[in-house]
Amino acid sequence: MDNRITAKIISMEDIISAGCFDVDKTVAVIEKALISYKNGRIIMPDKISQIFDEKTQDRINCMPATLLDEKICGLKWVSVFPDNPVLRNVPNVSGLIVLSELERGFPVAVMDGTFITAFRTACMGAIGAKHLARPDSKVIGFIGSGEQAKMHLITMKHMIPGIEVCRVSSKDSVSEMSFIEEMQRRFPDIRFESCASDYDRASTGADIIVTAVSCQAPLLKAKTIKDGAFYCHVAGWEDEYEVPLKADKIVCDQWECVKHRTQTISRLYQQGRLKDEDIYADIVDIIDGTKPGRENENEFIYFNSVGLSFIDVAVAYSFFKQVTDTGSGTDWDIKNSAFI
Amino acid sequence: MDNRITAKIISMEDIISAGCFDVDKTVAVIEKALISYKNGRIIMPDKISQIFDEKTQDRINCMPATLLDEKICGLKWVSVFPDNPVLRNVPNVSGLIVLSELERGFPVAVMDGTFITAFRTACMGAIGAKHLARPDSKVIGFIGSGEQAKMHLITMKHMIPGIEVCRVSSKDSVSEMSFIEEMQRRFPDIRFESCASDYDRASTGADIIVTAVSCQAPLLKAKTIKDGAFYCHVAGWEDEYEVPLKADKIVCDQWECVKHRTQTISRLYQQGRLKDEDIYADIVDIIDGTKPGRENENEFIYFNSVGLSFIDVAVAYSFFKQVTDTGSGTDWDIKNSAFI
Repeated sequence: MDNRITAKIISMEDIISAGCFDVDKTVAVIEKALISYKNGRIIMPDKISQIFDEKTQDRINCMPATLLDEKICGLKWVSVFPDNPVLRNVPNVSGLIVLSELERGFPVAVMDGTFITAFRTACMGAIGAKHLARPDSKVIGFIGSGEQAKMHLITMKHMIPGIEVCRVSSKDSVSEMSFIEEMQRRFPDIRFESCASDYDRASTGADIIVTAVSCQAPLLKAKTIKDGAFYCHVAGWEDEYEVPLKADKIVCDQWECVKHRTQTISRLYQQGRLKDEDIYADIVDIIDGTKPGRENENEFIYFNSVGLSFIDVAVAYSFFKQVTDTGSGTDWDIKNSAFI
Repeated sequence: MDNRITAKIISMEDIISAGCFDVDKTVAVIEKALISYKNGRIIMPDKISQIFDEKTQDRINCMPATLLDEKICGLKWVSVFPDNPVLRNVPNVSGLIVLSELERGFPVAVMDGTFITAFRTACMGAIGAKHLARPDSKVIGFIGSGEQAKMHLITMKHMIPGIEVCRVSSKDSVSEMSFIEEMQRRFPDIRFESCASDYDRASTGADIIVTAVSCQAPLLKAKTIKDGAFYCHVAGWEDEYEVPLKADKIVCDQWECVKHRTQTISRLYQQGRLKDEDIYADIVDIIDGTKPGRENENEFIYFNSVGLSFIDVAVAYSFFKQVTDTGSGTDWDIKNSAFI
């Protein structure tokens, strides 16, 4: 019997140096995965969330999924420790992804999951923008200025190249300045504005609004949102209830998932103030043409994604193939022999 | 901000060369973990089982758990593809274990989980034997002759050194002979008997019976079991219903887990032929002295363990510490920098 089991070890640097930091390719992978799920070609069990501190919401999420057509079963193992940046000077999110093949059931890859988490989330936001933002959007406003906010600017600007003004608001102005310094180098054609922690200033009159924060508080106010805006809700509960209630259309990555969480619209649903029929569509129904996306210049469209394990697995698998094709990553012999 | 995330990569060979293949130490770790769970110091969510083929039962199990006192959250990711040995000449089980710390939520180790799965299972069987077998047991009979059977002989012989006869039965005599050849070298003081696929011959009159097979069929017959025997049920449904119905005591690793599975006693429970009060104890209640184990020479005691994720995590964490202490394993930089 052949007792050897091996896998590829893939770091974030392997992923990036293999050219995987590519919005168009990743958007295509995500759209394809959403359609596969709709066609019943994906298994997505409920995620398991282990919460270690009710107050801080320190947690580790265990998110398995299977791509039946690709014959790949995978798992994202991701921690969210919201106080990490302030208390420990380290990122709040860290993750690993494991991929196994379905011929023998053996592992094929263990990969960094931190970059994939941030990038797939921002690509999902960009997919929302592609279908739901005004194509002539010029002003983007951020509440939050961390890695997830930066990643969203990168994918949104790629999708809507006409963005020319970026306003950024955060609880401290040091991180606003650090956001601007970093992003200005990447996008010399964008004019950046620091909002000095005035969240209203970031959202007032913006064509695209992104909230990417780790706190739970109604920071985004409905009155600041103009007609025709696209709002990409990334975190949990960071907008007042009037925001979704004011929306002309609410679109989700998957409403059936969202409704059981603690998102702003989940809370409204649980309170009976929002019903299934108030949700316009899941994004896949717009991608595949079942429903139109934006239909006029005046709609305010609210987009809420909570993150789906099969998207992580699909993106990781596409990265795995690209890393392997470029001869990158490290071979790991998990075991070479029988036990005894 | 420090954006570096690292973990130890630990192969089976790292685990074994660090001296972790130690029955006494591992039994102590498992007994301690069982008591911790009883004291409410462990989180064990339900495992997620993704089944890819209803007929073959090819599956990948996702088994997370948290050791609150050790501040370690871990996961076993383990596949069971029963046809692998016959169709593909590879093992039916392969696994990985991930461990994360609970200060920052970062991963600390990615480890082989195949050896740990087999070894912790066999150590649990040995714990059963310690408390439930006659200490003067001399004859052990196996139904099944694969890696899991061999592993059980190693741990049982360690626990009950008086074992002097080992009978082995399997669906083909080639694997009986290979079991005997391998085990005879390790235990020159044991007399081995090949049963030529006659399962009854392996169990008749044996003091200790172990069934470790991957098929689902009532191979072990009640009439072959003598008074005073200890039966260690390792697989799923491999004994006829009369076996547990005949038992003087039924002991589980955790009845609340077992009852919802597809074990022989779970099936009886689901049919209403076995009730909660028919289960004598969970093994922890015997370990901590709440209930006596074996009380006389004539009891036939039935022991059923299904495998608990926190045992995997506890054993893996003890191995991780030992591997790290011996300077073994490989450091892996999951990521070295910010994304952008």
